[in-house]
Amino acid sequence: MFNEGTIIALSTPQGASAIGILRLSGSQALEIVSLHFKAKNGILLTSIASHQTTLGIFHDNGQVIDEVLVTPFIAPRSYTGETVVEISCHGSPFILQRIMELCIQKGAQAAQPGAFTLRAYLNQKMDLSQAEAVSDLIAAESEGAHRLALQQMRGGYSQEIQELRQQLLDFASLIALELDFSEEDVAFADRKELSKLLHTLENKLKKLADSFTQGSVIKKGIPIAIVGKPNAGKSSLLNALLNEERAIVSDIAGTTRDSIEDTLTLEGYSFRFIDTAGLRNTTDSIEAIGVQKALEKMAMAQIILYVYDATDADLNLEKEIENLKGDGQVILIQNKIDLLTSDEEQPPTFKKHLHLALSTKQENTLDRLKKLLVELQQQNFSQSDIIVSNMRHYTAIQNTLEALDAIKTGMANDIPSDLLSIDLNVALDALGAITGEVNTEDLLGNIFSKFCIGK
Amino acid sequence: MFNEGTIIALSTPQGASAIGILRLSGSQALEIVSLHFKAKNGILLTSIASHQTTLGIFHDNGQVIDEVLVTPFIAPRSYTGETVVEISCHGSPFILQRIMELCIQKGAQAAQPGAFTLRAYLNQKMDLSQAEAVSDLIAAESEGAHRLALQQMRGGYSQEIQELRQQLLDFASLIALELDFSEEDVAFADRKELSKLLHTLENKLKKLADSFTQGSVIKKGIPIAIVGKPNAGKSSLLNALLNEERAIVSDIAGTTRDSIEDTLTLEGYSFRFIDTAGLRNTTDSIEAIGVQKALEKMAMAQIILYVYDATDADLNLEKEIENLKGDGQVILIQNKIDLLTSDEEQPPTFKKHLHLALSTKQENTLDRLKKLLVELQQQNFSQSDIIVSNMRHYTAIQNTLEALDAIKTGMANDIPSDLLSIDLNVALDALGAITGEVNTEDLLGNIFSKFCIGK
Repeated sequence: MFNEGTIIALSTPQGASAIGILRLSGSQALEIVSLHFKAKNGILLTSIASHQTTLGIFHDNGQVIDEVLVTPFIAPRSYTGETVVEISCHGSPFILQRIMELCIQKGAQAAQPGAFTLRAYLNQKMDLSQAEAVSDLIAAESEGAHRLALQQMRGGYSQEIQELRQQLLDFASLIALELDFSEEDVAFADRKELSKLLHTLENKLKKLADSFTQGSVIKKGIPIAIVGKPNAGKSSLLNALLNEERAIVSDIAGTTRDSIEDTLTLEGYSFRFIDTAGLRNTTDSIEAIGVQKALEKMAMAQIILYVYDATDADLNLEKEIENLKGDGQVILIQNKIDLLTSDEEQPPTFKKHLHLALSTKQENTLDRLKKLLVELQQQNFSQSDIIVSNMRHYTAIQNTLEALDAIKTGMANDIPSDLLSIDLNVALDALGAITGEVNTEDLLGNIFSKFCIGK
Repeated sequence: MFNEGTIIALSTPQGASAIGILRLSGSQALEIVSLHFKAKNGILLTSIASHQTTLGIFHDNGQVIDEVLVTPFIAPRSYTGETVVEISCHGSPFILQRIMELCIQKGAQAAQPGAFTLRAYLNQKMDLSQAEAVSDLIAAESEGAHRLALQQMRGGYSQEIQELRQQLLDFASLIALELDFSEEDVAFADRKELSKLLHTLENKLKKLADSFTQGSVIKKGIPIAIVGKPNAGKSSLLNALLNEERAIVSDIAGTTRDSIEDTLTLEGYSFRFIDTAGLRNTTDSIEAIGVQKALEKMAMAQIILYVYDATDADLNLEKEIENLKGDGQVILIQNKIDLLTSDEEQPPTFKKHLHLALSTKQENTLDRLKKLLVELQQQNFSQSDIIVSNMRHYTAIQNTLEALDAIKTGMANDIPSDLLSIDLNVALDALGAITGEVNTEDLLGNIFSKFCIGK
């Protein structure tokens, strides 16, 4: 499945630019490039020291293709752990293609997506969860997502998993030993100690599993539903926050039907605002679907901005709030305060909910809302915490927890060591799959195919 | 006009990818990067030898932004001639922007388009025509355009211009000397020698000016007009050559009205095929405009494919050919030969024109046409010839030729040295503008603003 030869790929994006980088990795990398590279100072490519950048020409039988900089990274001092050669040339698609063609003619293979990082993993330059973080790092669009990926790439994550797995592995070894002496009915593994370990493991894994919501939210943006009665000014609030005319705004109640989403990054946190249809009983069937959707969005949101019209005489806020769905943190938004006379300006107090008076026409009130949102996130997310943001890891942790449960039940029923051993192995495999201590070709193929080419 | 400080730009295209390169140039480049870079091996950035690539972290007050490779190129051993630092990081738009922001906070300036190459020119790393070729090289889409740009970038072009100018300069100096002794009425500059030089210069410059058609054609593609009577199969030929359904084809005479253009690269030559409306007298006013356009395209084409229907009984080819316009090389295409019975298969012979029998359904006959087109280009374009492909250079050469003409006329009329001197300076300035020996801020601004950012 994994090509064994020397691979080559464009490592920079497609398109004309000042510089383009081609990267080769494999035992033939130096040899292939040396057939086409002539250093300006006359030195042979194979004589250039590792990490030494050298100017020269890339040629085809003497015919110049481009002036290039070539840098060899001699194994194991490279990203992949193999010998890598980087060719930095003018960012002309024509030149990049010609150089690539010539290298392929001389035996290099066009790299599959993720092939470089896969080799780094296979050569133990990083574990699997670190490799996955490389892809997340490149895709990260907010400071939160970036920090999460970087933390994982630098191994903070793997260590915790590996330590937990090692403890479990020690026990599994003792249990396995019991099997060898099964006729003698001895117990090398202290069942009480195992129970204690299982308990610790369970707690730690559950904490990690719980962090997934937070991790997923950081990667994809924190979902914030903007809800409220028709004409409370929800779409105006969305537009004001995004600073663009994203949603259609009119005086007619029921203007918004489809829920409209857009993302705003505030101090490194990515917030996904969801404008919804106004909550009311309606005979309009399309609007009714919209109201239903609004309720669903509200149920899934991490934060609910309940917007109400400060000038609404009929408002029964206590009753409205009772109808709110979901576990999200509610912030009551008293909107349109610019329309109030000064004696009306005191907002009602609600002990159970945060409350903010606001006008989309007053920048400082919008800033207050943004500040509040950031503060709520800062409380939720401590930088030192280890957070699971990868769906595959989350699934593996859930599988481990199930296996631990089975072990606990088995022990309670005093099942024999060989059956206990099976469940232990399931748990070990599930945990090992996260860092790649246990892997299958399918697993690797699935992970690395999602990478970009050249990484 | 030109910023003097340390500049920074993204040198690779926008977008997520394996690697992104940021480049700084200027006296503060090392200092700025050293504030945020920590080498893994502990060495200080300012202590790293030129061209030595070093792994480390890019951080903001200790908070890691990314793991990066940093390569210093110590002045004058760099592209710009100043100290350059290249930062190779993960190709994440977020990371690239963060690093750029931090460097700008520490005093770097975002580079204008072409700023790096402008500095290379100002530091005499290359002359102006070589600098312009860098931009052409990046944009080159065919082997011909690539070869032309590379030749110019490597200076083959500048040398010729500089030599011609030097000779003219020597004469101008003698003439200037005469001005110092004007009261004594001496002639240091031998007028006969000057006449001879002017003659040589004129010949060489005219040859260069003539090459512009060829150079422009190589850059933009060789224009080939496909003309002929309605229903001769012109659009079918275009589609067959491009191997796609580019033009609408029907049995109805006059299907094509607008001229349709598309480019095909054959063995490194870029051909621009232009399908035109069938040539006939028509009462349809739109078609009549199309016929007019066809005649114009024919007049400008370098090659004219005159397509006729092999089965057309009414054909009077001699008469048709008389109507062809322009200086292009004519190739008669006897089309639809698959519809001929075997005894009709001999194509008529025309001594004055190339002739080819063809069927769009027979791949080998299409290949014969492609081969012929490539051969014609190879005859026109010898690799060793110096070819002008830049409109600015062409204009400068024309201006020089005009000035030379004025000098000749002046000499014939025996005008005084001081007037001769004026025309000589016009010629010197025009020639000098090509390589940048003479420049103005306007000229430089105009040239480099067309570059991409980061180059």
